[in-house]
Amino acid sequence: MENIVIIGGGTGTFTLLSGLREYPSNNTVVVSSADDGGSTGILRKELGVMPPGDIRQCLVGLSYTQKEMRELFSFRFGKGSLAGHTAGNIILAALEKITGNIDEAINLASKMLNVRGQVMPVTLEPTVLSAKLKNGKRIIGEHNIDDQDPGNKTSPIKNLRLSSAKANPKTLNAIAQADVIIFGPGDLYTSILPNVLVKGMKEAINKSSAKKVLIVNIMTKFGQTDGFKASDFLTEMEKYLGGKIGVVLTNNKKPASDILRKYAKEKAKFVEPDLKSGKRLMVISEDLISKDVPQKKAGDKLKRSFLRHDCGKIAKLIWSLV
Amino acid sequence: MENIVIIGGGTGTFTLLSGLREYPSNNTVVVSSADDGGSTGILRKELGVMPPGDIRQCLVGLSYTQKEMRELFSFRFGKGSLAGHTAGNIILAALEKITGNIDEAINLASKMLNVRGQVMPVTLEPTVLSAKLKNGKRIIGEHNIDDQDPGNKTSPIKNLRLSSAKANPKTLNAIAQADVIIFGPGDLYTSILPNVLVKGMKEAINKSSAKKVLIVNIMTKFGQTDGFKASDFLTEMEKYLGGKIGVVLTNNKKPASDILRKYAKEKAKFVEPDLKSGKRLMVISEDLISKDVPQKKAGDKLKRSFLRHDCGKIAKLIWSLV
Repeated sequence: MENIVIIGGGTGTFTLLSGLREYPSNNTVVVSSADDGGSTGILRKELGVMPPGDIRQCLVGLSYTQKEMRELFSFRFGKGSLAGHTAGNIILAALEKITGNIDEAINLASKMLNVRGQVMPVTLEPTVLSAKLKNGKRIIGEHNIDDQDPGNKTSPIKNLRLSSAKANPKTLNAIAQADVIIFGPGDLYTSILPNVLVKGMKEAINKSSAKKVLIVNIMTKFGQTDGFKASDFLTEMEKYLGGKIGVVLTNNKKPASDILRKYAKEKAKFVEPDLKSGKRLMVISEDLISKDVPQKKAGDKLKRSFLRHDCGKIAKLIWSLV
Repeated sequence: MENIVIIGGGTGTFTLLSGLREYPSNNTVVVSSADDGGSTGILRKELGVMPPGDIRQCLVGLSYTQKEMRELFSFRFGKGSLAGHTAGNIILAALEKITGNIDEAINLASKMLNVRGQVMPVTLEPTVLSAKLKNGKRIIGEHNIDDQDPGNKTSPIKNLRLSSAKANPKTLNAIAQADVIIFGPGDLYTSILPNVLVKGMKEAINKSSAKKVLIVNIMTKFGQTDGFKASDFLTEMEKYLGGKIGVVLTNNKKPASDILRKYAKEKAKFVEPDLKSGKRLMVISEDLISKDVPQKKAGDKLKRSFLRHDCGKIAKLIWSLV
């Protein structure tokens, strides 16, 4: 069975997992420990637990149990003192407090959800992400980097840093065994790179004989990837990785103008597919936009993109590589 | 298999279920829908769900699954915005919001916990309990009756009322099939009688050929059963039931004086075992106090008694009756 390691953890990863469900791979999702926004941020701060949000979402993505159990983990309270929390985040936090470690909490939640595959934090230590901008300003905290106000001025990220943390040994092992390592889809600086910055991770990834695949986002993100073309995503990825990506999947279909207008309000633009295959790089450039538009749910305080990758198509492309 | 129906729902019922685990009966727990205190009260008020606390506790009492899953449902958050809530209450509330009814939510939670037996709300409508006191004062809300300040003056409860609600048909059916119906242990006016006051319940209980067993509390409760002897518990029970109890289990062992002093601070006194068996009534009067002292957990804002019935002994006595 092919071992696929997916590095990311946000909604993009969840979408990808929906596509990979149709294939018999052994999927391991590696999620960042830097998330500090929304329900996750509150639980992390108040209870001292590892950030549960991405773990929860990926567990659901790998779950093969009755619909209601997946719905339970994804259920977000819309009002009252629990508003914004998902039941799954609360369950993971409780399990971590009961067992004393996130690994065991994930094991128990995996049983509840009948998970096939694994979800693992990139490190067992909570981490803090910070970004130094070209204008000299420093932003501390994943959520603060992620959720910048498009009404403000922005400056490109010059240097992304993570508080010192050692990689989870299980994660290093999964990378060593991987046939394919997928980066994204997800926010480059806040979902993908916080994994690569953990001590031991880039060495393990570069040492691995796995095919390394970068899935480029459909749209830029204000305060992070403003003005980025596909080639900029690749350049930044390889810069932090200190190594080469073998395959890039990039969307070449410009969204309809009404959608672009909505994104323009968030100062987000279409990512130009400017990459071409070369000696060392394979570029797959196709229409990768999903025809399904997800709905924002009540109580969710985070901004979430509504353009999604076509998970079925991407999964098929990935399977054509293995 | 003997069908045992337990009417109550609080910590006393949980204790009883721990004892009944050792026996192969089919246990059905009927819980009140009037609870409005603590975590339950908040969830009920904020989310419009049925009171989850007693249901959760009884599900755990009937659960035969790994320890951590029972611990998850019982886990009470000690700090932060979730302080006071149990994870199990939150799970039940989420499942009720997802499925749209408490019955289905209980089914799903029962699967998660591998429950043997059934837990059912006495009615599928939320209810409000109120008490008219002898001094003319009226107290509205289960929690307000339950948690009166021992620093204040009190007056006996003259009349207990419940807002109009029809009995859950499943509950009526369980009562019709019962071999034994157990009332308590639990607070008479706030855990046991709110079940009897639901429309159709007393008729069903009196019509049932089951043995009706009353387990009398060890101590009185301020604002509810002040000055009560065992005979007063029986009198009140039969008054609201409009029918006869067949068997009374009553503790005849006075707790140690240091324990009595602690209870005296809450204006709670030892219940004198003044009942004797007669033509229609069987009285079992024994030392029923557990040697184990439960610990209060962090974050729990409700007052809970620390004298407990010896669940093993009571279960054995009940089995001697069937």
